[in-house]
Amino acid sequence: MENKLKIGLIGLGTVGCGVVKTLCAFPQIEIVKAAVRNLNKKRDVEVRCITDDPFEIVNDPEIDVVVEVAGGVNPAFDLLKTAIKNKKHIVTANKELLAKHGAELFDLANEYNVAILYEAAVAGGIPIIMPIKTTLKGNKFKKVAGILNGTTNYILTQMEEKGISYQECLKEAQELGYAEADPTGDVEGFDTMYKIATLANITFNKRIDVTKIHREGITNISAQDIKFADELGYKIKLIALAQDNDGQIDVRVHPMLVSKSNVISGINNALNAVMLEGFPVGQVMFTGPGAGEFPTASSVVGDILAIDAEFGKCETILPMTRCHHREMAVQTDILDTKNSYYISITAPNAMGVIGVIGTACGENKINISSVLQKGTQKDGTAQIIVITEECSERDIQNAIEELKKQSIKINNLIRVM
Amino acid sequence: MENKLKIGLIGLGTVGCGVVKTLCAFPQIEIVKAAVRNLNKKRDVEVRCITDDPFEIVNDPEIDVVVEVAGGVNPAFDLLKTAIKNKKHIVTANKELLAKHGAELFDLANEYNVAILYEAAVAGGIPIIMPIKTTLKGNKFKKVAGILNGTTNYILTQMEEKGISYQECLKEAQELGYAEADPTGDVEGFDTMYKIATLANITFNKRIDVTKIHREGITNISAQDIKFADELGYKIKLIALAQDNDGQIDVRVHPMLVSKSNVISGINNALNAVMLEGFPVGQVMFTGPGAGEFPTASSVVGDILAIDAEFGKCETILPMTRCHHREMAVQTDILDTKNSYYISITAPNAMGVIGVIGTACGENKINISSVLQKGTQKDGTAQIIVITEECSERDIQNAIEELKKQSIKINNLIRVM
Repeated sequence: MENKLKIGLIGLGTVGCGVVKTLCAFPQIEIVKAAVRNLNKKRDVEVRCITDDPFEIVNDPEIDVVVEVAGGVNPAFDLLKTAIKNKKHIVTANKELLAKHGAELFDLANEYNVAILYEAAVAGGIPIIMPIKTTLKGNKFKKVAGILNGTTNYILTQMEEKGISYQECLKEAQELGYAEADPTGDVEGFDTMYKIATLANITFNKRIDVTKIHREGITNISAQDIKFADELGYKIKLIALAQDNDGQIDVRVHPMLVSKSNVISGINNALNAVMLEGFPVGQVMFTGPGAGEFPTASSVVGDILAIDAEFGKCETILPMTRCHHREMAVQTDILDTKNSYYISITAPNAMGVIGVIGTACGENKINISSVLQKGTQKDGTAQIIVITEECSERDIQNAIEELKKQSIKINNLIRVM
Repeated sequence: MENKLKIGLIGLGTVGCGVVKTLCAFPQIEIVKAAVRNLNKKRDVEVRCITDDPFEIVNDPEIDVVVEVAGGVNPAFDLLKTAIKNKKHIVTANKELLAKHGAELFDLANEYNVAILYEAAVAGGIPIIMPIKTTLKGNKFKKVAGILNGTTNYILTQMEEKGISYQECLKEAQELGYAEADPTGDVEGFDTMYKIATLANITFNKRIDVTKIHREGITNISAQDIKFADELGYKIKLIALAQDNDGQIDVRVHPMLVSKSNVISGINNALNAVMLEGFPVGQVMFTGPGAGEFPTASSVVGDILAIDAEFGKCETILPMTRCHHREMAVQTDILDTKNSYYISITAPNAMGVIGVIGTACGENKINISSVLQKGTQKDGTAQIIVITEECSERDIQNAIEELKKQSIKINNLIRVM
């Protein structure tokens, strides 16, 4: 009994309950106390002691490991700082907290010689943090990219399969529990941004300023964009990416057209995928469920068992997991990135419009790779899709401004992967 | 200097050279000696000391970790046993040795309290051993399956893309260095069998008898099989699988028709993929380069760095990686498995043949799911493809015997995933 690893759980929602159920199979681990927001809420799990004061958990001398699955920055930040100062190891699924205050937490954890594990904070059940920190440790990474949010990927997949609008799809997703009542965190790309910040942090061993990450969500993607992309051989996905361009780190989140020949285009519904590119490994990709009670519990419990394996046996538990880097990344401004673009244009009439587009692009050093004209509408307007070759974001924005001045309506501008 | 982790390398071929080159970036690791077969062979790497006696490595008191990338059972087995008894940690890429003698090595390693790491022994650069042992440790696995051999996957992909025969493809693969002069180990499925034995071992925590694994290679796959499969919506892949059927472990290696809707069907050329299914995680899949100098070096170096991180700091280095299970798996006989089947049949004439096939299947409790008759040949024979519903291997073998008795030629019988 005395040798059991003692867990204090902060949060007993979906993930917390999954953790309790999963840990039943591991008698060497004991959840001694859980903190909840509402003591009276019915739950389908039992914990020895329940409190509505999470500080009881982080200050409890009996507890060895604090497992935080409540989310949000406050009071989680204060709670985890207190826990670390009380020499407790941390397991957290809190992507927002890590993205915003990871650096302070990792420094504090090093000072107090405790581990912070957070496999569940990125890509749910997919093992990605531990592989980067252990098996792939010998690599110098060039790029990490993928689909990190199940809600938006579900919506985009359903829009494509059913040919319906974003709004209709969101409503359906909310009814099915795939999207929250306030979907902002998912559909505007915040959740994905927090996750890529953490991935970039450990992939490039530099600190990422989350406020400098270019972020666009999926709310502007129309059923028509998805249809046109399909005709051109692409799917539209919300992509997170971070790449090292000669020491500058380009980190961003936005929808992209992904070629159907790229396996990422086949990652559908609530699945997530993370692709890593580095030397010497080349390219590896991990796919699986990016969220949900049990997949997330799998990662949380994996972290707890990793601590348990070394607890009391090593002067430093899981040294490979520690973040010792302190250098801030120089992050690339989106205007300085180079991309190929999809431009959806509505022009007052087809006559001469392709010439105008060609001139605006040419004057901004942009080469057009393909043009798709979708006939003329009843009102005389023409629908035109342009795919450019790789050019700078600054140049494409200038060309777009130019086109707008000439009464050409830009329906959407989407980068191509 | 004195704090460097000291490596002794056995084998300085492709992988060994990749390891030396990769370790250049890690000054905390020092390769003190390498054992080679031929001292006079030109190599593009330098090692402080080279010997042609590998026992010099395993008996060298200066060496902390023995890295074995020479392959084969002899003398590797004796070498590693000696190294373990000399309290050296082991990193090996030797899939055959682990499959045949892993149990003895793991027991010995536990006795002498050293770690044996072997990320490179399965799926090259893809992190799979460490994720199963750490991040996914909380799971009870139901199944592990995938494509574990790059050579055969390359051949099958090229047969499909070029519509050419196995023999032509093998020759090309040999010329390009994708296949060895004696390709038996790859094309007959031995390499894949060794790898699935190790995966099954750690996934189900039971010892696998490699001699009881049903194994078929790809030498009987014809260009026609690939073409017919394609018409029916499948690709043909050499699949390794291990699944837990109520405590019995069904482990096997054979070609399978994989539906084009299954992402495994899209893993082409030298890529490998490993799919894991368990609770609570659900399904996760890992893809990447399954072989080659640098991908394999990535895994070997990851293991070396994992030992380095804990070396001298823990009473037990990397306790999560240890194999403590001693129970032998009860392995399912192939005749007791259930599968859906592709049967390619040449019949003396089309008339009445489908009736004969239907009767043979019906009498053996086999339901036919689809039949594809490919016209009548010049010689009057008819080519017929049958896909069955799931039935027992015993029943299908009986039906095949029955058909053969009636002068019906069975060109191939391939299981369907």
